[in-house]
Amino acid sequence: MNLRIPGPTPCPPEVLAASARQMINHRGRQFAALIGRVVERLKRFYRTQHDVLVLTASGTGGLEAAIVNTLSPGDEVLAVVIGEFGQRFAEIAEAYGAKVVRLEYEPGQAADPAEVRRALARHPKARAVLVTHNETSTGVTNPLAEIAQAVREAERLLLVDAVSSLSSIPVETDAWGLDVVVSGSQKGWMVPPGLAFVSMSPRAWEAYRQARMPRLYLDLGRHQRYLERGQTPWTPAVSVLFALDVALEMMEREGLENIFARHARIGQMTRDGVKALGLQLLAADERYASNTVTAVRVPPGVDERALRRLLEEEFGVELAGGQGELQGQVFRIGHLGWVREEDIRQTLDALAQALPRVGYELPARA
Amino acid sequence: MNLRIPGPTPCPPEVLAASARQMINHRGRQFAALIGRVVERLKRFYRTQHDVLVLTASGTGGLEAAIVNTLSPGDEVLAVVIGEFGQRFAEIAEAYGAKVVRLEYEPGQAADPAEVRRALARHPKARAVLVTHNETSTGVTNPLAEIAQAVREAERLLLVDAVSSLSSIPVETDAWGLDVVVSGSQKGWMVPPGLAFVSMSPRAWEAYRQARMPRLYLDLGRHQRYLERGQTPWTPAVSVLFALDVALEMMEREGLENIFARHARIGQMTRDGVKALGLQLLAADERYASNTVTAVRVPPGVDERALRRLLEEEFGVELAGGQGELQGQVFRIGHLGWVREEDIRQTLDALAQALPRVGYELPARA
Repeated sequence: MNLRIPGPTPCPPEVLAASARQMINHRGRQFAALIGRVVERLKRFYRTQHDVLVLTASGTGGLEAAIVNTLSPGDEVLAVVIGEFGQRFAEIAEAYGAKVVRLEYEPGQAADPAEVRRALARHPKARAVLVTHNETSTGVTNPLAEIAQAVREAERLLLVDAVSSLSSIPVETDAWGLDVVVSGSQKGWMVPPGLAFVSMSPRAWEAYRQARMPRLYLDLGRHQRYLERGQTPWTPAVSVLFALDVALEMMEREGLENIFARHARIGQMTRDGVKALGLQLLAADERYASNTVTAVRVPPGVDERALRRLLEEEFGVELAGGQGELQGQVFRIGHLGWVREEDIRQTLDALAQALPRVGYELPARA
Repeated sequence: MNLRIPGPTPCPPEVLAASARQMINHRGRQFAALIGRVVERLKRFYRTQHDVLVLTASGTGGLEAAIVNTLSPGDEVLAVVIGEFGQRFAEIAEAYGAKVVRLEYEPGQAADPAEVRRALARHPKARAVLVTHNETSTGVTNPLAEIAQAVREAERLLLVDAVSSLSSIPVETDAWGLDVVVSGSQKGWMVPPGLAFVSMSPRAWEAYRQARMPRLYLDLGRHQRYLERGQTPWTPAVSVLFALDVALEMMEREGLENIFARHARIGQMTRDGVKALGLQLLAADERYASNTVTAVRVPPGVDERALRRLLEEEFGVELAGGQGELQGQVFRIGHLGWVREEDIRQTLDALAQALPRVGYELPARA
């Protein structure tokens, strides 16, 4: 199966083989070497000198950790929402008693840094800004560096969902002044799901010391204390860590800049191919179209479920549907992590053959 | 390495091979079949007709789920504490604002159901009882059926940490009236860490509807709603689920009663072997000694770290140290999950050879 969903992403054979290693003592020396090596490499991909913690959780668990470790019930926060994952980030903050002000955009739009700046001026008490770097539900990448600049000028805390961007699209944790950055193993990292990564800036640790939202499983202070002795506070997903260790080594061999270039090239190839089929991107402005996932509008009269089922059953290509209000309105092509041009060529060929069979007429030149 | 710690436990080759399968779409039909099959089998091992949810988390995450889904800040709860894991369960409740009354025992003691009954009479407002079935830190198994009877008579909610007992030692979720029962993949289930299981009785769901502790990642209602359509709310640890699927099949082939008998036999063999070496169990009353982990008192003058290092480096046997206040006072032998008599024989032989080298004189007949 050519699994072209925005995570879990396919894993290279070496990574899968590492997943099958026999268990080790998570309180022993071999584990200490493993977690130490993994965290040092994660820091290089995060472009941070500060702390990166590894949690046994999905990306959503990582987002919850970002919130409960830096905020208190009643705190006002500004949530920049451009899709489902932005909503989820805001919803977590609300579940824990934050007062959430939303800066919302239509699906397909990116956030405007100038509007973030104005929203912060209107809400001087907002302690933190929640932002999704790459919105997996709409295939849009926010201009994070510019948003971060607005947040830094206003001296607020910046919590970033980089689950589907980090390691595939440039993120400069320290240079951009990002306080908490969350990612997940099953995205660009080419590893099975089960681990979330959370970076903490010195400002974030300062906020941690004041933060009063309840937490234990996701407590980052505990994770940090255990990490100092080469451990995690709770038994971690050891086999996913084995896989991550190998994947990070492969990524270092490829080189971060080369990985970014590959994603940019393949993202462009996907968008060009989709448009050549006469289809429309959901991304309103292609400058903000994502290099890890492309959301495509379902053409009028086409049953999106029938299209995806046909692609899966007859062409061996699995795409993702729309989430939330976009269900039936878009389909999504994942192109992050272990992806090559050939995977996208096959996907586009399959689309070209399948679309006419679900009632869509290809443009003459396609 | 003969990994004789109480989890992560060694995994059979078939289970490890399953961990290495390529990723699938967690919103697709293949995943729906997988999670459906796994949950039906988990219910048979839980001996419940009600719900079992699968979370991507360690056992501690499962314990936190038990609490935050059934309680509200300010609720009084009775925590039966016989060791580190009992303390941890209580600590989670406190972190979320519960008023915790502890019924504490010395390390090595089991809880007395009559005392639980009296404590509940003294604390008529205690809404729930937290109890560790098998205390991994002391190698003691609480008389859960009798404790449950006391809790049922008093009509309180019963939350059970069965992380290191369920599937190895009899647990009758429905027959004993256990409301929430938590287990973890890396214990008796012979699977890598990364998944927690949580059962919910109808009474527990009633409590869920009133419960006001904040939650999102660990929200069991969301897990239940997604499970109904063959999904999990967040991307799950897919490779650990592949492994669990195979392990549950192997366990069904062996048969639950045979698994219990094997653990009872191997538990007894471990205790007899340790005593034959002149060593003392931490368990004060052998009737409550655990069949999944044996905690052994470190003899006077022996450096427990040196002993474990020697066992590891020269004999290929890895034991666990003591936790918390028991550090340096006990070592622990795990014998749960994929364990055979031969593993314990090798462990006991290694101990017999290593102990004299760290200053312990074996009894004449050993």
